[in-house]
Amino acid sequence: MAGPEIERLIQLLSRLPGLGPRSAKRIALHLVERRESILPQLVMVLGDIGEKIRRCPICGNYDSIEPCAICSDRRRDRHSVCVVEDVGALWAMERTGSFQGRYHVLGGLLSALDGTGPDELGIPALRERVETQQIQEVILATPATVDGQTTAHCIADHLAGLDCVVSGLAQGVPMGGDLDHLDDGTIAAALRARRRF
Amino acid sequence: MAGPEIERLIQLLSRLPGLGPRSAKRIALHLVERRESILPQLVMVLGDIGEKIRRCPICGNYDSIEPCAICSDRRRDRHSVCVVEDVGALWAMERTGSFQGRYHVLGGLLSALDGTGPDELGIPALRERVETQQIQEVILATPATVDGQTTAHCIADHLAGLDCVVSGLAQGVPMGGDLDHLDDGTIAAALRARRRF
Repeated sequence: MAGPEIERLIQLLSRLPGLGPRSAKRIALHLVERRESILPQLVMVLGDIGEKIRRCPICGNYDSIEPCAICSDRRRDRHSVCVVEDVGALWAMERTGSFQGRYHVLGGLLSALDGTGPDELGIPALRERVETQQIQEVILATPATVDGQTTAHCIADHLAGLDCVVSGLAQGVPMGGDLDHLDDGTIAAALRARRRF
Repeated sequence: MAGPEIERLIQLLSRLPGLGPRSAKRIALHLVERRESILPQLVMVLGDIGEKIRRCPICGNYDSIEPCAICSDRRRDRHSVCVVEDVGALWAMERTGSFQGRYHVLGGLLSALDGTGPDELGIPALRERVETQQIQEVILATPATVDGQTTAHCIADHLAGLDCVVSGLAQGVPMGGDLDHLDDGTIAAALRARRRF
């Protein structure tokens, strides 16, 4: 159909999350049509990312500086650490602007099948960080799934005996949530965790 | 949130067709995570496209060879030319595998507002091609919109008097089309163009 270069681009693009063959084609065509404007910019930025982006040795976030911008921001609370599954969850948390502490990015969840244990998720390193950096609260923000909650329990076990509060995100009815469309588990959890008006 | 390089990538990605800020973030994260596998391949392919892809001087298709693979394919019928709005339409036509001739890519539609006239769409060049290359049929496959059909009529006018058949795609009920969900214009067109069983 199109030449081999364009076919290869469509093939690479269709492997990106959320893109199928049709959307990959549309984007490829857009890039070919703008090969003198957006394409060189994209090549430059992608090259930059390949060269400069590293994982932060403290929290596991991606950044071009070490430690990352969040870990080196002195205005952020250094006594509070939020544990997230991955950098996507960190970005989601940052988007809300409601957390002013720092992070620990697990890079996955516990999984016997994949052979992901506490060491792979940096849980001993988190314990050491809590011990040596006077961290007062660890907020477990792993997903509200079976694996996410198993991982949260395992982290809480590893932090047992340390002088810090371990908390988890509240579970309940999401904003705009209509009981009729919510699953039973969520409704039951919201009822159990009901609060006085 | 993320570093300036990642922010810039998200910004560029979210300008691509069909991607919003959320999908751009998801793709950016995917690329950052795979900065040693898919990212260098993507940079290479995009660089290739920037350097090698040109418009075919005959039909207007994009390719790294001149004339393009379709125009230089001797097995294709050189006496039949399909006129399409853009390369996206050419790809859609090729995907069906049902057309074995060559193309003329307009690169747009007639538009008084945008100042796009017959010269910008290469219509005089198409007439010359029909005259000199013994083309026997020109199939007008511009979209079934007002602008698309205006453009088709204008091309037909420009080709008047030449010894070639000018045809257009049939209009009617699409495959799987349910009358209840079709617009009135389509149903009326299908009725007018009804065929004997």
